[in-house]
Amino acid sequence: MAVVGPGDASATHLDAAEQVGHGLAVRGALVVCGGLGGAMEAACRGAKRGGGNTVGILPGSQRREANAFVDIAVPTGLGEGRNALVVRAADAVIAVAGAYGTLSEIALALRAGTPVVGLHTWELSREGRPDRSIIRARTPQEAVERALAAAAGR
Amino acid sequence: MAVVGPGDASATHLDAAEQVGHGLAVRGALVVCGGLGGAMEAACRGAKRGGGNTVGILPGSQRREANAFVDIAVPTGLGEGRNALVVRAADAVIAVAGAYGTLSEIALALRAGTPVVGLHTWELSREGRPDRSIIRARTPQEAVERALAAAAGR
Amino acid sequence: MAVVGPGDASATHLDAAEQVGHGLAVRGALVVCGGLGGAMEAACRGAKRGGGNTVGILPGSQRREANAFVDIAVPTGLGEGRNALVVRAADAVIAVAGAYGTLSEIALALRAGTPVVGLHTWELSREGRPDRSIIRARTPQEAVERALAAAAGR
Amino acid sequence: MAVVGPGDASATHLDAAEQVGHGLAVRGALVVCGGLGGAMEAACRGAKRGGGNTVGILPGSQRREANAFVDIAVPTGLGEGRNALVVRAADAVIAVAGAYGTLSEIALALRAGTPVVGLHTWELSREGRPDRSIIRARTPQEAVERALAAAAGR
Repeated sequence: MAVVGPGDASATHLDAAEQVGHGLAVRGALVVCGGLGGAMEAACRGAKRGGGNTVGILPGSQRREANAFVDIAVPTGLGEGRNALVVRAADAVIAVAGAYGTLSEIALALRAGTPVVGLHTWELSREGRPDRSIIRARTPQEAVERALAAAAGR
Repeated sequence: MAVVGPGDASATHLDAAEQVGHGLAVRGALVVCGGLGGAMEAACRGAKRGGGNTVGILPGSQRREANAFVDIAVPTGLGEGRNALVVRAADAVIAVAGAYGTLSEIALALRAGTPVVGLHTWELSREGRPDRSIIRARTPQEAVERALAAAAGR
Repeated sequence: MAVVGPGDASATHLDAAEQVGHGLAVRGALVVCGGLGGAMEAACRGAKRGGGNTVGILPGSQRREANAFVDIAVPTGLGEGRNALVVRAADAVIAVAGAYGTLSEIALALRAGTPVVGLHTWELSREGRPDRSIIRARTPQEAVERALAAAAGR
Repeated sequence: MAVVGPGDASATHLDAAEQVGHGLAVRGALVVCGGLGGAMEAACRGAKRGGGNTVGILPGSQRREANAFVDIAVPTGLGEGRNALVVRAADAVIAVAGAYGTLSEIALALRAGTPVVGLHTWELSREGRPDRSIIRARTPQEAVERALAAAAGR
């Protein structure tokens, strides 16, 4: 399961990301993320606290740029191009908050037909018509449940 | 200047993309796009009709997948990962209509600080607050002018 | 530690790759490889038999293309471009036998200053002068020891 | 046609690369290269002197890192991963001299079945048996002719 979110996040969003990571780990899911700080680090911290494992797919070419809660660091050297790899590595994506990098991950997942669950994240519309492809969750627990259900249903 | 838009587009959107490509070429701008059909092909067709040059940055690894109006085809073999390269190759991006691939290009451009002009394309908001980073245009001509102005102002 | 080698390998080379994977696992090293069959699968099989963990960095975009002994599959969708990622993920590279894909991985590792240990693999020369950058090993055990020593010395 | 060679080259090798670029342009071929200095710049300079066009596929994400003789700069942000794109963009590859980056391009081209012509470049062997896949040229003129013939024969 991929957890995507911004490197610079509010305390509320960091807490949500950590709870998402924890919830996934408790349910036995591997947490894949972009490997850096902010929401990515919070999700990894939560996953480790929940007894799970974490993969960080990094933009740079050095493993040492991974946050301290990443078990397997994959330095790609692709910059933001690594966002496509984060999304490909998962059966579903949970987006927590998010800046433009997160929006690109949401878009790439929807493009690939991978379910996206959103918590405090982007809303999309096109020429005035809302796009309802992002599955909405109101709590971290609900995000975890909906993502697991969506991944199972593929 | 990058023109991004869907491979599968309505006649109205194809016409808009062609006019954007034509307008850019007449103003002396190189047109960079994803190299395939639909809005990408329309933009290239317009650019060639306007006497300009076109670059197609392709998702696959074969030059022959480029549309017939691409002068320089760059097969990347990166799949949707090539979207990051389309955006990097330009001083500004014009998004015409758009599906999720186009949304990823808008997001990557905004992430990189590259100006994005939108014509019949996505609207973004986050937790109920609209994001106004996409410069709106109502006509192809306005899109060309705003993109050239934004690129010049960087 | 990355183990690189061909998807189509002789029984001798497969056995060597399996012993390399086993030796690395016994010594506590994570085995990173290209995730497909042949020497890659043999190295992963050896690593699992030795109680270790394995990462497969795949050329395609589907996790299911990984061999059965890969613990963490990272589908990249980059084709042979993923070879750069295999090399970046490791402190040293062991090349077992090898076709042209393996040669590209050797070259990328040497380019990045990452030590390369070779077992039954390519020999390089330029304008008649041998290049001795590949550290030669005659047995799988020697390859493991030299790679661990080279990685520790970085 | 791709011309690959090192960023840091001797005067003899730079002269050879420039003559290769010039010869290709005179014969009407587009010159694709890695876009930086050294042999890449020399090949582009030769091509422009011969009235041709040049494409530079850059490792970084800024067009301004291209040498002054690049007509179309494609910033990839892929680092050495861009070597795979240089090779994919051509029907044949001419390798002039070369360090490890060039060796990776030779290997990726041979892997893809793209003909490689070598001038003052790497020689390969495996377990003592020479590999004769690189088509040898003794002069820039011969390199151009052999590459054009090989590309035509695909």
